[in-house]
Amino acid sequence: MPESYTLHYFNLQARGEAAYLIAVHGGVPVTRNLFSDFNKDLKEKCPFGQVPLLVVQDDVSGATAHIVQSIAICEFLAKKAGLIPTSHVEQAIALQYVLGVDEFRTEVYSQYYSGKETQQAKKEWKEGKMKFFLDKFESFLVGNKKEDRDLFLVGSSISWADICLYDALVEQAFLLDEDNLWGNYPLLKKFMKQVENSSESFKQYVTSSSKPVLYMKNWRQ
Amino acid sequence: MPESYTLHYFNLQARGEAAYLIAVHGGVPVTRNLFSDFNKDLKEKCPFGQVPLLVVQDDVSGATAHIVQSIAICEFLAKKAGLIPTSHVEQAIALQYVLGVDEFRTEVYSQYYSGKETQQAKKEWKEGKMKFFLDKFESFLVGNKKEDRDLFLVGSSISWADICLYDALVEQAFLLDEDNLWGNYPLLKKFMKQVENSSESFKQYVTSSSKPVLYMKNWRQ
Repeated sequence: MPESYTLHYFNLQARGEAAYLIAVHGGVPVTRNLFSDFNKDLKEKCPFGQVPLLVVQDDVSGATAHIVQSIAICEFLAKKAGLIPTSHVEQAIALQYVLGVDEFRTEVYSQYYSGKETQQAKKEWKEGKMKFFLDKFESFLVGNKKEDRDLFLVGSSISWADICLYDALVEQAFLLDEDNLWGNYPLLKKFMKQVENSSESFKQYVTSSSKPVLYMKNWRQ
Repeated sequence: MPESYTLHYFNLQARGEAAYLIAVHGGVPVTRNLFSDFNKDLKEKCPFGQVPLLVVQDDVSGATAHIVQSIAICEFLAKKAGLIPTSHVEQAIALQYVLGVDEFRTEVYSQYYSGKETQQAKKEWKEGKMKFFLDKFESFLVGNKKEDRDLFLVGSSISWADICLYDALVEQAFLLDEDNLWGNYPLLKKFMKQVENSSESFKQYVTSSSKPVLYMKNWRQ
């Protein structure tokens, strides 16, 4: 049945961007409400009081459903966007990676808000958890690599796991503001380019200036 | 195709039990390897170095796949167990609740390891985040309640979200060791009984003495 989608989030990439990237990749029309003031009315519509929130409207009956939790929204839109692998095992592996990417993001936000002096916090991040996770993601691409083919986390075509990883890597690259961040990660670097070029609408969006701002700019300054 | 499943986890309920409960509920045969020593060989098989790990073996080819992250394992087994709602919207809402239950669990483990004096930590938990989450879950049951029907988080039949919530509530009840914990939550209390009685194999397992021990026993002492 025909449905309309509205994605509510702060005017930031952070935990709201991956869902939108998935929709853009698959040509799923999603209207965004990007706000700077998270007002009470909206907050009350969110089951756990948090955004992102996806409002799904049935175009025939007008009935609406509210979906929260970024990963639940991403998986829902990935089904509409054709970005879910076909077998149950590959579906589970995709979700496993999405959950791992989410941990990576939770860890960096936690370090960012640790109260530590900026340079010290960045140094610890880069030598500790960031290295752990980037080593892991590079190794997953190595493990799933086949000759003469693009790089994917799961199976042999792009899935929502790839988009979620791409989104987190864009944030890392911004955050650390270092051209050589990818020096130790040749496959991750290649992977990002391949994801960027994997759909015309996606490429157009990610290279446009219409994206919300990235998070945690203080680390970059 | 026929598959065999082995679930590896510490000899504890914690983050390993919900997956097993889902399998038991749906009659999916899962062998468990419950260990006290997380050895290096097994750790190396886990993509992020963490359990739970579900090993899926194709009974024809003998090929194996490794799935980690408790929520990915739960969703995979829920598909085999017939515990996934039918529509995309209800599937997303189920996952949203599973992710919320996981946050609830993460918060209590974090408070448990906060280094605060036991009674103080428990008091803060009960008056803060525990109250927040139990109020939420009670309200979700109220919101989805229909006359003359059992209580479910999503739709009108039991789903993996209900099993995951049940599992977390069992842990809470143990943890706080208070008969009156459910005084403010009549629907959660009723819900737990209904989940327990919703499948013969499930009821048999949860009332047996063959379950692993519960986590965080210090708060109970």
